Amino acid sequence: MSAEAKLEELGIKLPPPPQQLGIYKLFVQTGNLAYLSGHGPFLDDGSLMKGRLGEDLSLEEGQNVARQVGLNLLATLKNELGSLDRVSRLVKTLALVNCTDDFYDHPAVVNGYSQLFADVFGDDAGVGARSAMGTNSLPGNIPVEIEIIVEIKD
Amino acid sequence: MSAEAKLEELGIKLPPPPQQLGIYKLFVQTGNLAYLSGHGPFLDDGSLMKGRLGEDLSLEEGQNVARQVGLNLLATLKNELGSLDRVSRLVKTLALVNCTDDFYDHPAVVNGYSQLFADVFGDDAGVGARSAMGTNSLPGNIPVEIEIIVEIKD
Amino acid sequence: MSAEAKLEELGIKLPPPPQQLGIYKLFVQTGNLAYLSGHGPFLDDGSLMKGRLGEDLSLEEGQNVARQVGLNLLATLKNELGSLDRVSRLVKTLALVNCTDDFYDHPAVVNGYSQLFADVFGDDAGVGARSAMGTNSLPGNIPVEIEIIVEIKD
Repeated sequence: MSAEAKLEELGIKLPPPPQQLGIYKLFVQTGNLAYLSGHGPFLDDGSLMKGRLGEDLSLEEGQNVARQVGLNLLATLKNELGSLDRVSRLVKTLALVNCTDDFYDHPAVVNGYSQLFADVFGDDAGVGARSAMGTNSLPGNIPVEIEIIVEIKD
Repeated sequence: MSAEAKLEELGIKLPPPPQQLGIYKLFVQTGNLAYLSGHGPFLDDGSLMKGRLGEDLSLEEGQNVARQVGLNLLATLKNELGSLDRVSRLVKTLALVNCTDDFYDHPAVVNGYSQLFADVFGDDAGVGARSAMGTNSLPGNIPVEIEIIVEIKD
Repeated sequence: MSAEAKLEELGIKLPPPPQQLGIYKLFVQTGNLAYLSGHGPFLDDGSLMKGRLGEDLSLEEGQNVARQVGLNLLATLKNELGSLDRVSRLVKTLALVNCTDDFYDHPAVVNGYSQLFADVFGDDAGVGARSAMGTNSLPGNIPVEIEIIVEIKD
């Protein structure tokens, strides 16, 4: 099943393409690879989810934030490529989790995003290499920021 | 206007190519992409700017540090490629801001670097995908560290 | 000397391929580049080394952890490619050091990994671009996490 068909089957409605918070592009393609900037969890009304894991948010809330970042990444892909079906595979993810010093469950948080991509693009093409890490602060105090590299169909 | 001509028009003098602080190369090319290592803010005398945002440095000082990191990146590009005109575009930036837990203005800090690249390479080729993030510590207590991927002309 | 021959000469025995802690692949190849996920310091018995630099571990202990992460990366490369000799060069490394706010010796810690790769793949092919950074927390409280990009022979 194509990613667009899967999105419809799952009843997923994408948020508007995210705002930019500086001098950068959300998406740059070189050869058949597209680099997406670090994305945050914008909601449909343009506001950002906020807070730190280990302090303000539960693990489940963090997973939901990560999923929202994933929806923003999908919105950028759709906006730039016209169709998610032009993505041939997820290559690489760097996922940043805003957290206290004693929070250790970053991979579980980031799975909220990774499960979404696996659902939409499939268990092979939708699952890539990944690094999950903690940080003591993120722009605007968002809980999760994610950047990805995807392969584009010729 | 070419990047070299722009550099001269702006009266920008590049610092010497930066020192290495470990077992790595400052620049590795594969295909038509060049990966530059995390660069710090070396000054002309070989010393490093230091301190944390939210504690030791104002936003404006942080932007100035980020610009200095940008000058170091340009120095490496010039040293490795012979001419900045061989850069066809900035692809991707990962910018690390050394800061307190309650500092949230990373994108504004990093703009100090991004504006320099936009000035030198132009508003299209000089603006790439970007992630800005906080960290609780950087090598030698530098305020900003930046790594980039650029596309090289054939 | 080939990487496999070098490994044998150095008497290095690789650990088993590392476990995955989430929804991702340890290795994804696109074109002639392979992206390896953030790896941690699994020991032969499947347990993880833990602790923070500047608090729980000395510099030398940190370097040993970084070397162990390197062994895990080699184990993944060998498992995925069949032979380390299929790696033509190390392109890029992002190395994360779990540390206190006043720890500044990240590059020296990461050299524990970089020296291993230089030993196995040689001083040119085994040395790539690199960024070393601090973080306030890593998954499972591991001291070092490293992701790499390598170039694969056609």
